[in-house]
Amino acid sequence: MFKFLFLLAILILSSDAAVQDFCVADLKAPESPSGYSCKSVTNVTVDDFVFSGLSAAGNTASIIKAAVTPAFAAQFPGVNGLGISAARLDLAAEGVIPFHTHPGASEILLVVQGSITAGFVSSANSVYLKTLKKGDLMVFPQGLLHFQVSDAGYTSVGYVFFSSSNPGLQITDFALFANDLPTKLVGATTFLDEATIKKLKGVLGGTN
Amino acid sequence: MFKFLFLLAILILSSDAAVQDFCVADLKAPESPSGYSCKSVTNVTVDDFVFSGLSAAGNTASIIKAAVTPAFAAQFPGVNGLGISAARLDLAAEGVIPFHTHPGASEILLVVQGSITAGFVSSANSVYLKTLKKGDLMVFPQGLLHFQVSDAGYTSVGYVFFSSSNPGLQITDFALFANDLPTKLVGATTFLDEATIKKLKGVLGGTN
Amino acid sequence: MFKFLFLLAILILSSDAAVQDFCVADLKAPESPSGYSCKSVTNVTVDDFVFSGLSAAGNTASIIKAAVTPAFAAQFPGVNGLGISAARLDLAAEGVIPFHTHPGASEILLVVQGSITAGFVSSANSVYLKTLKKGDLMVFPQGLLHFQVSDAGYTSVGYVFFSSSNPGLQITDFALFANDLPTKLVGATTFLDEATIKKLKGVLGGTN
Amino acid sequence: MFKFLFLLAILILSSDAAVQDFCVADLKAPESPSGYSCKSVTNVTVDDFVFSGLSAAGNTASIIKAAVTPAFAAQFPGVNGLGISAARLDLAAEGVIPFHTHPGASEILLVVQGSITAGFVSSANSVYLKTLKKGDLMVFPQGLLHFQVSDAGYTSVGYVFFSSSNPGLQITDFALFANDLPTKLVGATTFLDEATIKKLKGVLGGTN
Amino acid sequence: MFKFLFLLAILILSSDAAVQDFCVADLKAPESPSGYSCKSVTNVTVDDFVFSGLSAAGNTASIIKAAVTPAFAAQFPGVNGLGISAARLDLAAEGVIPFHTHPGASEILLVVQGSITAGFVSSANSVYLKTLKKGDLMVFPQGLLHFQVSDAGYTSVGYVFFSSSNPGLQITDFALFANDLPTKLVGATTFLDEATIKKLKGVLGGTN
Amino acid sequence: MFKFLFLLAILILSSDAAVQDFCVADLKAPESPSGYSCKSVTNVTVDDFVFSGLSAAGNTASIIKAAVTPAFAAQFPGVNGLGISAARLDLAAEGVIPFHTHPGASEILLVVQGSITAGFVSSANSVYLKTLKKGDLMVFPQGLLHFQVSDAGYTSVGYVFFSSSNPGLQITDFALFANDLPTKLVGATTFLDEATIKKLKGVLGGTN
Repeated sequence: MFKFLFLLAILILSSDAAVQDFCVADLKAPESPSGYSCKSVTNVTVDDFVFSGLSAAGNTASIIKAAVTPAFAAQFPGVNGLGISAARLDLAAEGVIPFHTHPGASEILLVVQGSITAGFVSSANSVYLKTLKKGDLMVFPQGLLHFQVSDAGYTSVGYVFFSSSNPGLQITDFALFANDLPTKLVGATTFLDEATIKKLKGVLGGTN
Repeated sequence: MFKFLFLLAILILSSDAAVQDFCVADLKAPESPSGYSCKSVTNVTVDDFVFSGLSAAGNTASIIKAAVTPAFAAQFPGVNGLGISAARLDLAAEGVIPFHTHPGASEILLVVQGSITAGFVSSANSVYLKTLKKGDLMVFPQGLLHFQVSDAGYTSVGYVFFSSSNPGLQITDFALFANDLPTKLVGATTFLDEATIKKLKGVLGGTN
Repeated sequence: MFKFLFLLAILILSSDAAVQDFCVADLKAPESPSGYSCKSVTNVTVDDFVFSGLSAAGNTASIIKAAVTPAFAAQFPGVNGLGISAARLDLAAEGVIPFHTHPGASEILLVVQGSITAGFVSSANSVYLKTLKKGDLMVFPQGLLHFQVSDAGYTSVGYVFFSSSNPGLQITDFALFANDLPTKLVGATTFLDEATIKKLKGVLGGTN
Repeated sequence: MFKFLFLLAILILSSDAAVQDFCVADLKAPESPSGYSCKSVTNVTVDDFVFSGLSAAGNTASIIKAAVTPAFAAQFPGVNGLGISAARLDLAAEGVIPFHTHPGASEILLVVQGSITAGFVSSANSVYLKTLKKGDLMVFPQGLLHFQVSDAGYTSVGYVFFSSSNPGLQITDFALFANDLPTKLVGATTFLDEATIKKLKGVLGGTN
Repeated sequence: MFKFLFLLAILILSSDAAVQDFCVADLKAPESPSGYSCKSVTNVTVDDFVFSGLSAAGNTASIIKAAVTPAFAAQFPGVNGLGISAARLDLAAEGVIPFHTHPGASEILLVVQGSITAGFVSSANSVYLKTLKKGDLMVFPQGLLHFQVSDAGYTSVGYVFFSSSNPGLQITDFALFANDLPTKLVGATTFLDEATIKKLKGVLGGTN
Repeated sequence: MFKFLFLLAILILSSDAAVQDFCVADLKAPESPSGYSCKSVTNVTVDDFVFSGLSAAGNTASIIKAAVTPAFAAQFPGVNGLGISAARLDLAAEGVIPFHTHPGASEILLVVQGSITAGFVSSANSVYLKTLKKGDLMVFPQGLLHFQVSDAGYTSVGYVFFSSSNPGLQITDFALFANDLPTKLVGATTFLDEATIKKLKGVLGGTN
């Protein structure tokens, strides 16, 4: 028996050294194109693979009446490099997750409460629009513009899952109006008039 | 204005022809290593991207007191090639999703009801075990053995999401006992005794 | 010498059968998530790998004073599956390629004539903006909003190259205004007022 | 001639700086999801690309009568990031490599001595079983349970090659019985009875 | 018990339909950039995953005194899409596998008989050269020029494994001299003189 | 309004931390198989994404009458990890970019001046050869031998783009003759005679 245990210990030891079953993010070490550096396996615990930050509702007391709480690699280090991550959507009645894209991932939405009208637009400019009830799934292909709106009379909650541990998030309104892009350039590249742009820059904190 | 519309129509037409924003599965056409063939875009509707099959509870009236309902590319054609898919877990009190692996994907579990004790074992043979409440997430790295059990006194529901549209599912007990692998060979490769193997073959429908 | 030739012929024959150096698109056969089906090697000629469609200027006589001519897999079958493709940009003075994204690819712009001001916005909402002269390159990371404008007094020409043979192209204005998305929904998801939306729908051919 | 040499030297120098033909593992530097950090090219020698650790037989004097010797990136730094690695299997007569998976790789077995019965089980629970002689190859698709047994009367040797430089190795018996997973939980998730579990925990060094 | 079997049968049936554990090549169906189309799982047998074509020695009675026998997806359909394949090298004393590349894969060589001097050249033009004995491994990074030579006095056998099921094989001499590339063009692009080129074209069957 | 801005700021802040839209190369930090480490986003400016080093002609006053100027990740840090890079080709009349491969990338050539005859050879030893004029594109599949020659009477300029930020570059003549590979070994592996090898070693700076 001793020999058996000894041999298997050797075998396990060898393969252990070579193992990269996972790569829990060390948020303070350098990043590479494939994600964060890995925390030493010695310091990894089950809590790296568990995330409770999506169990509480986000604060919807804002003019969008909605909140997004991410569980990407930066918040949930266990997903680093595993090609998957999550976020929680809270929407008061008529709350809105405005048009946005995830540059690096496809998304599945699961509705767990309420009623959400969601849609995406393809490169061919077709609209795919549906009202979803509790338990419904909808998939949004990588990089395409999409949105979610809580239907009138419903407080809605959804969870979204991504095909990357770093999906990114680009909210169109923010990209256009919440930074220092010159109004004239925004106008030229969106066909919006100057007054509209200046108004939205005002609301969203943009300048120029 | 006519010229503008005309030009943009041309532009869109051209890019439209090249578009492969998504590849909704045509389940009757040939598969390739990258997944199912794509349904013609002309025939694609929003319903290809929406799946309601996980809104109803699975039937837990069995000895595992649990059910798994998949939304992989074969059930949910819109996810084909998008690197993501889903499934629903229903567990009566003390219901069990037995030890299993997904050969081609990592998994995130979201608990939406009850209390689930879940765990996985790494290549280095370490156990990562946690009791999860409603709203908790847990990630299971690709290919590793894992399980989920509903805690006593709780009827639990979870949704799982995968980093592939074809994650696969290999339940260890089924792989070992529910087919025609000769009892002697199962014994030699698992160290289980013949009586145990024959008993489990009996329960799970295996032969030889 | 005969044996030598014979043996090498065998060797080449064997490896030839296994070769997949390239996969020239057969545009009429089924697509898979990895791209178009491959044309039989027997029918492939050098002309599949050469594309002259970008040698002539596009027509800039439109209100955007610009044209985009794609050389994606649908136009240039030789690039199918090779992870690269191209397009030509023609811009009259003050011509504009409006804000857009490529859902599936990063892009490098090469300016070959004139002066182009180009920019992109990151997920963190930072603006990266530069005026480029002949011979300059600029890279636009995958999926991020970007635009190109020809500077006053310059007729400009650029070539863009993508890290995919099917990069996709989503022009934000088109996605928002050139289809049947209801005005109210566009308003809710963009914060634009109804009059602005209706005006742009009018210009771009949208309804509802 | 000087100019020629000079120019080409420049050219080579430039491209040299950009080269990442390989990434020999620096086992002491941080890992990323794509593998180990690269050793400086200056310190790389041919010995990083050569591995002699599989030339000697492993010790089969154990109850499994078998040994596995890995040549993964941790043992053979030259393979890091190249998508390939190896291991040697030594089996005395009736020696067994028990049921196991490689979470991150497909495997090809080459039999170089003896007679090996090998098999794998698919997600669909089908058994693919074959007795292999010297010179035979068998492929085991990624993540699926498989095993190898030396036939009675044969001392067998095999070499296995993987589609990853970090394939991982999860031996089912070890995952279930050689750690501190509570006996009750193992029972619930495997349908094995407590006595069987406790016996195997005893043999394999498990607790609880 | 009936319910249990019934439920699990459902579960397995569902997941079975979604399974793509492997994609055995259907050599007569269309190829995609990801490989051959998949044979129907119903028609797959263990023999698709086993290949005996490398058990016999290749014929080394030629001027290179060597033979290469491939087990790529075209010969060994079970490896299609699994990211791995193999070949056998037979070399009489001083037999040579001439300088060549695999455009799409890294390679590991296992020497099983004799003594082989192998080498590769990096993009930085460094030579990595080693004499290998039985049991030694050497890795050749993707796309780089490499060769194998059997040492004087040794009949050598090696097996090579690739990180792709379609690695490709481009023998430099063949690419330069065994086709209809005009002698003048070969001269201009290799700096070889016309006489040398014509001689090698003669030996290798080239024209022009 | 304050609440709205506050909430969105939180949202952006959270997602910002998780963002990996790009990974500008930090050339002094460790490399991984996926490329260079990322420079801190705080230090990234638009100039990391712009490269002017290809705007000037390379020096063609050499016996190849040609120059290659790379814009790979080492020269153009913004492309790191984005799967794309570039280079400029300058060719005097009858200038030659000799036979070479890029081990890790496919290439598209854009001719911007003159007339270039370009070709590649497949694994099946077929030649794909074409004379290209200004505005023509030609694609060279990954890892295959190819060349470019400026036609008599034309000073030619081309830009090439790659499907990797680290395509590598292996010039066949350099790999064979510009290092210390023993003449005898070069002879054995190329079928060239000793005098030819020694002459080319002399020209290209090789020894042995």
